[in-house]
Amino acid sequence: MFEKNLEQYIELIVKRGLNIEKGDRVHIYADVSIHEYVKPVVARIYAAGAVEVEVIYSDEVITRQKYLHDEEALFDTISEVEQARYKKWEKSCSKRLSMVSPNPKAMDGVSSERIMKNARMAYLSMKDYKAKMMGDKMSWSIAAFPTKEWAKVVFPEVDDANKAVDLLWDAIFSGTHVLDGPDACANWDKHVQTLYARLDILNAFDLTSLHYTNSLGTDLVVGLPAGHRWKGGGSTNIITDKSFAPNIPTEEVYTLGDANSVDGIVYSSKPLLFSGQIIDGFKLELKNGVVVDATAEKGDAMLKELLSTDDGAKRFGEVALVPYASPISLSGILFSMTLFDENASCHFALGNAYENTLPASAGKSGEELKELGFNVSQIHVDFMIGTPDLQIMGKRKNGEIIAIFKEGNFAF
Amino acid sequence: MFEKNLEQYIELIVKRGLNIEKGDRVHIYADVSIHEYVKPVVARIYAAGAVEVEVIYSDEVITRQKYLHDEEALFDTISEVEQARYKKWEKSCSKRLSMVSPNPKAMDGVSSERIMKNARMAYLSMKDYKAKMMGDKMSWSIAAFPTKEWAKVVFPEVDDANKAVDLLWDAIFSGTHVLDGPDACANWDKHVQTLYARLDILNAFDLTSLHYTNSLGTDLVVGLPAGHRWKGGGSTNIITDKSFAPNIPTEEVYTLGDANSVDGIVYSSKPLLFSGQIIDGFKLELKNGVVVDATAEKGDAMLKELLSTDDGAKRFGEVALVPYASPISLSGILFSMTLFDENASCHFALGNAYENTLPASAGKSGEELKELGFNVSQIHVDFMIGTPDLQIMGKRKNGEIIAIFKEGNFAF
Repeated sequence: MFEKNLEQYIELIVKRGLNIEKGDRVHIYADVSIHEYVKPVVARIYAAGAVEVEVIYSDEVITRQKYLHDEEALFDTISEVEQARYKKWEKSCSKRLSMVSPNPKAMDGVSSERIMKNARMAYLSMKDYKAKMMGDKMSWSIAAFPTKEWAKVVFPEVDDANKAVDLLWDAIFSGTHVLDGPDACANWDKHVQTLYARLDILNAFDLTSLHYTNSLGTDLVVGLPAGHRWKGGGSTNIITDKSFAPNIPTEEVYTLGDANSVDGIVYSSKPLLFSGQIIDGFKLELKNGVVVDATAEKGDAMLKELLSTDDGAKRFGEVALVPYASPISLSGILFSMTLFDENASCHFALGNAYENTLPASAGKSGEELKELGFNVSQIHVDFMIGTPDLQIMGKRKNGEIIAIFKEGNFAF
Repeated sequence: MFEKNLEQYIELIVKRGLNIEKGDRVHIYADVSIHEYVKPVVARIYAAGAVEVEVIYSDEVITRQKYLHDEEALFDTISEVEQARYKKWEKSCSKRLSMVSPNPKAMDGVSSERIMKNARMAYLSMKDYKAKMMGDKMSWSIAAFPTKEWAKVVFPEVDDANKAVDLLWDAIFSGTHVLDGPDACANWDKHVQTLYARLDILNAFDLTSLHYTNSLGTDLVVGLPAGHRWKGGGSTNIITDKSFAPNIPTEEVYTLGDANSVDGIVYSSKPLLFSGQIIDGFKLELKNGVVVDATAEKGDAMLKELLSTDDGAKRFGEVALVPYASPISLSGILFSMTLFDENASCHFALGNAYENTLPASAGKSGEELKELGFNVSQIHVDFMIGTPDLQIMGKRKNGEIIAIFKEGNFAF
C-alpha cells in the first residue's frame, strides 16, 4: 500500500507539480537524509522525457557546522559557483523541484545573523533566477518528504521513530489528496476545482480591504490594491503557457496586500520554521503597511533579522485564505513546516508579492510598483494567523461590507 | 569498539591524510550513501581548526540515470559550474578529501564511451587543479567507507548485509593499521618507517630497468629514467612544506617508468574498477613504452576507451612495488577497488607520472618531458599485476643484475 501511495505521490509531483514533458531540464534540491526518495523521483522525471536532471544535495548537519565554524568573511561573499549555477538554470529554463524535509531543530544554537547574512548572499547570487520564479517565468514546485527527525517533532507521543514516519507519510498522502482515489493526479484536478470556484467569487466581490479579528487579539485592516487578482490551485508559466503546481499540497486562495496600507495588530497562530529555526508566539504591529513593532516569545532575534532584510521585508506581499475546516487543518496535526501549516491556516507573507496577483505590475519597477502597492523584497516568508474564531469582513469598491470569513471558515 | 576504531580512523584521515591545521580550507567528495560518515569527518576537521569545509555529494544511482538519459550534447560540454568550483579551490589552496565507497555494479549497462566523454570534460574543467594535485602543490587524500553494496561484493558468501559491512570495516581498520595499537596516527607513523627503509635501498641501487616475469605470462622490461626517485609513505606539499597522505592505506613504494621504454607483455592479476565499471582479465603488450595491443575478458570496450584518451594514456606513469606478504594482501580479501587492491599488489599506472618521482621534470613541459621519459596524460589509472610467483630483476647503472622481487616479495 505504501509503495503504491508513494508512486502516486511521485506521479503527482512529476505530472502536476512540474508538469514534465519531453525535452525538459530539471534541477532538484534535497537533503541527503531523503536520498532514497530522490532516486525514484529522478527516474520518473527521466521516464517522462527529461533530457537533463541535476540534483543538488545539502546536508543540514553539515550546514549547521558551517554556520558555527566557517570564517566570518564567507558570510559576506557571493559564491561564484552558485552564481554560475543559477545563471545556467535561468538561461536553460530548467524546472525547479524542492524536496523538503524540515527539521525544526536543525539550526539550534546557530546565530540568526549568520543565517540572514547567508540568505542575503544567496539572494544576490540568484537575483534574476528568483525574479523569474516569482514572475511565473519558470516552473517550480515544493513537496515534502519525511525524516525520523521531522516525524518525531510532529508526533512526539510516538516512541517508535519508524511508526512516526509512517504516520507522517499518511498525513502527507492525505493532505495532498493522494488518498482521495486511485489516481492522485485526477484527485488533484478535482480538488483544485473547489479552489477555482472560490477565486471566481472573491474576484467578483472587487474588494478594497479585509478586516481581520479574532480572540488572540488580532485586529488588522489589510488594503487590497485596485486590480488585484485572487489566485490559487496552481500557476501557469507565462513563457511556455504550461501549468505547474508551486505547492504540493495547496488549499489556499491568495492575492497581494497593499504594501502601503496595512494597519493594526496581528498575532501568529502557529510556529514558523525559517531556515532551520523556529519563530513562535509572535505579534506584529503595522502602520501604513509597515511593521513598526514586532516581538516573538521564541526566535525573537531571528524575527528581527528577517524584518530588517530590506524595506519590503517589513511589508506584506501576500494575503492567503484557508478555511479552518480544510482537510489538513482538520487533521489537527501541527507539521511545524510552512508548506503544510500554511495550507491549514489563513496566512500572510512578509516580502515580495507575486506578479500574477497584480497584472498591472508586469514590466513595472521601483517607484511605479510602490505606487501600485506591489511589495518588493529579497524575502517571501509566509506566517500563519488563522484560528477557529477568525472573522474577516471585506469592504467592496462600492462601500458594501460583506462577511468573507466567519468562525474560521468561508462565509459564502 | 567500532565507535573507537571509527574515531581513530577519522583521526588518521584528518591528522595524517590531510594534516589539518588552523586556517585550512577543505573540500570533500562523497556519495550520499555514506553521509552518516561524512558528518563526523567534517566535525573533526572543524575541530582541528579549518575555517571552511565544503562537501560535494554525488549519488551513484542518479549518476547512472544521467549516463543513461541525459542528452548527448551534455557529454561534450564543459560545465561552467565545475570550472568555477575548481578555480576557487585552486586559488584558495583548499585541501581535497575523497571519501570513496566503490560500487562495482554502479554503472552496469552504461556506455563506456559516455563515461570516458564525461571524464574528458571533467579533466578539461579541472586542468590547472589536477596539475597542482599531481605536482604536490595541493594536499589531498583518499579514504574508503563501506556500503552494503560494496560489502556484498567483497563478502558474497555472507548473507546478512550488516554483517558484511562489519567485516569490511574490520578489513579497512586492519589494512590502515588502525588496529596495530591504540593510537592510529602513531601506528601509521611506525608503519611508514618500513616503507622509508625500502626507499633508501631502492634509491641506492640506481636502477635503469626492471624485468617482470610470472606464471600468468607476464614478461616485461620497464625502463626507469635517469634521476628517478622512489617514493612512498606519504607526500609533502611543496608550497606549504606540510606532509599529507594521498592514500589511506599505503603499502607501496613507487617511481615512474620510462614513457619511451617499456617492452613486453603484462597480465592483470586483479579486476580494475574504473568509473563504476569492471575491467578484468586483461593483457597489455607494449613496445617502446606504448601499448600496442590490449584485450580484456571483461570490460574490453572500457579498457580501449581508456587507452584512447590521449597518447599518454597508452604509456606508464607509475611503477609500484608491493610485497605479496603485505598485510592487505595476506588478508586474502579482494576489495574490488583500487585503493585497497593496489596496496595488496605490485601495480603500474597508465597515464600521468608524479612530478616528485623525477625532480628534473619540475618546470618542464612538452618535448622536454618526453625526452626525460616523464609521461603526460589526462588520466592516471592504477592496475594490479602482482602474483605470489612474481619475479623482478633489476639492472643497475653499472650493469649489475640484482633480484628486487622473488616469489612475490622483496628479495632484500
